[in-house]
Amino acid sequence: MIDELIRRIDELDNPTVVGLDPTPEIVPEHLINGMIKLHGKTPKAMEAAFTEFNRAIIDAVRDIVPAVKPQIAMYEKYGMDGIASYIETVGYAKLAGMTVIGDIKRGDISSTAEAYAAHIGGTRVGDENYDLWLEDAVTINPYLGYDGIEPFVRVCKENEKGIFVLVKTSNKSGADIQNLILKDTGRPLYERVGELVDKWGSEAMGTCGFSKIGAVVGATYPEEGEALRKLMPRTFFLVPGYGAQGGKAEDIARFFDADGRGCIINSSRGIIGAYKKDKVCAEHDFAEAARKAAIAMRDDINGAKRSRR
Amino acid sequence: MIDELIRRIDELDNPTVVGLDPTPEIVPEHLINGMIKLHGKTPKAMEAAFTEFNRAIIDAVRDIVPAVKPQIAMYEKYGMDGIASYIETVGYAKLAGMTVIGDIKRGDISSTAEAYAAHIGGTRVGDENYDLWLEDAVTINPYLGYDGIEPFVRVCKENEKGIFVLVKTSNKSGADIQNLILKDTGRPLYERVGELVDKWGSEAMGTCGFSKIGAVVGATYPEEGEALRKLMPRTFFLVPGYGAQGGKAEDIARFFDADGRGCIINSSRGIIGAYKKDKVCAEHDFAEAARKAAIAMRDDINGAKRSRR
Repeated sequence: MIDELIRRIDELDNPTVVGLDPTPEIVPEHLINGMIKLHGKTPKAMEAAFTEFNRAIIDAVRDIVPAVKPQIAMYEKYGMDGIASYIETVGYAKLAGMTVIGDIKRGDISSTAEAYAAHIGGTRVGDENYDLWLEDAVTINPYLGYDGIEPFVRVCKENEKGIFVLVKTSNKSGADIQNLILKDTGRPLYERVGELVDKWGSEAMGTCGFSKIGAVVGATYPEEGEALRKLMPRTFFLVPGYGAQGGKAEDIARFFDADGRGCIINSSRGIIGAYKKDKVCAEHDFAEAARKAAIAMRDDINGAKRSRR
Repeated sequence: MIDELIRRIDELDNPTVVGLDPTPEIVPEHLINGMIKLHGKTPKAMEAAFTEFNRAIIDAVRDIVPAVKPQIAMYEKYGMDGIASYIETVGYAKLAGMTVIGDIKRGDISSTAEAYAAHIGGTRVGDENYDLWLEDAVTINPYLGYDGIEPFVRVCKENEKGIFVLVKTSNKSGADIQNLILKDTGRPLYERVGELVDKWGSEAMGTCGFSKIGAVVGATYPEEGEALRKLMPRTFFLVPGYGAQGGKAEDIARFFDADGRGCIINSSRGIIGAYKKDKVCAEHDFAEAARKAAIAMRDDINGAKRSRR
């Protein structure tokens, strides 16, 4: 995953990922209403609308953006039908040549984490193997410690798969737990988690200098991100919080390493909901608006990166 | 949820919950092979075997055990089919009159947590409401802080639903993060999380003296559990780790309050896999063996509770 992702980022000169987080507010009304006409006011209608929406977005950005990050909660909300849309979306993006980061934030004790690791490691029934979830990488919660991470590390070592462990999240109340100051170091908890992730990642290095075990580091805390970059030199960052959540390109530029590598920046609403802010685009042009917004984001991030170097 | 759960615990004199965590190792071979004959070596076969297994267990314990706790990872491993079995299992247990705690350990930032809260809060499509996941309560990860908890608290305030927030988990490496000592108090992180959960829970009290916002506290650390009981007087504990993981009844007895209330103890493998250790029971008697094990667990916990008082 990590080597291929970095290759694609370099090839497209674009260190960004589009968050596919459809909601009834973001997906255009004509799509939802059209599907409600076919399927009634049912989760099935939302599944169909989300899938069609995502396909159009993927088609519009696949030649300029290296990766997508569907947030499974948005799909899980619609039960089995929603999950079907999630899996269809992951598969469609992979067929389009994109890297898919499943934002699932799972985390559990060892034997249970092993079951969750099927997301990237596949599932065996008798002597048959299935890849039922299709993601290239997933996000993981570290609160249960290493035995909840280890089954994923094992999969990553043996396969071209990856994980991103939550270190410092982009939301304000992430600080409730993550910023608590530890007695031994006088430094915040998230730095300790970062050091652990970097250490865990040493077991599963890619060929490109970065580990298959990455970290989630929110764009909304630039000093913290810059400090983490130094603490975690081998760790690739998945950076949420650009745009709608307030993270700015010049802040995020500090998260890259001296070679201008080491991060992929996510935007969800800012891209997939761009048509709502674009006075030239009508609702039917949501995919074109997403492409324009993705190009603007790429140029914004690259500009800030370059003016920093 | 919490008032009804406590009422059922009192009525049955049984503060335990059966973990419905089916795996290919635990579900009897004749069930899996039978379903593979019907459906081939497919996730569908596992779905059918898991559902049949769970129904038999539920039928065998419903009159003596107040609740079940399906671990969603075991189902998610089998993709859409697995999720179907999870939802069927939750529904079957509810129809059997049991409280269902979905062990989903979800956790995300506010808008995303709101989507996950559909597990207990339901889903709206147009003006139609759906309860697609059916759980009475779910487990939640606190690493993202209060804005990831708040959407669930809102649902709990308005409905007879509940959550259990991870505080101190039963696995060994839970200590990696949870036991880090904080500078301001000189006490471990999990105690701070416990205090936060107790505070958050004050917004959503049941009528029975306990909050709808509970905590997960592992049976494997009795001193820690006893200390948390004092720190969190209003918080009901979901206690994993009894039996197979090493937690003992006399240890767990310390987690109850002076009235002998405040906990529900989970056992998964020890109950649903009991037939493997019971020389009298053949594989076909797995449900009977589970009932015997559930009775033994109830008596073990109640005995330890009473000898302590």
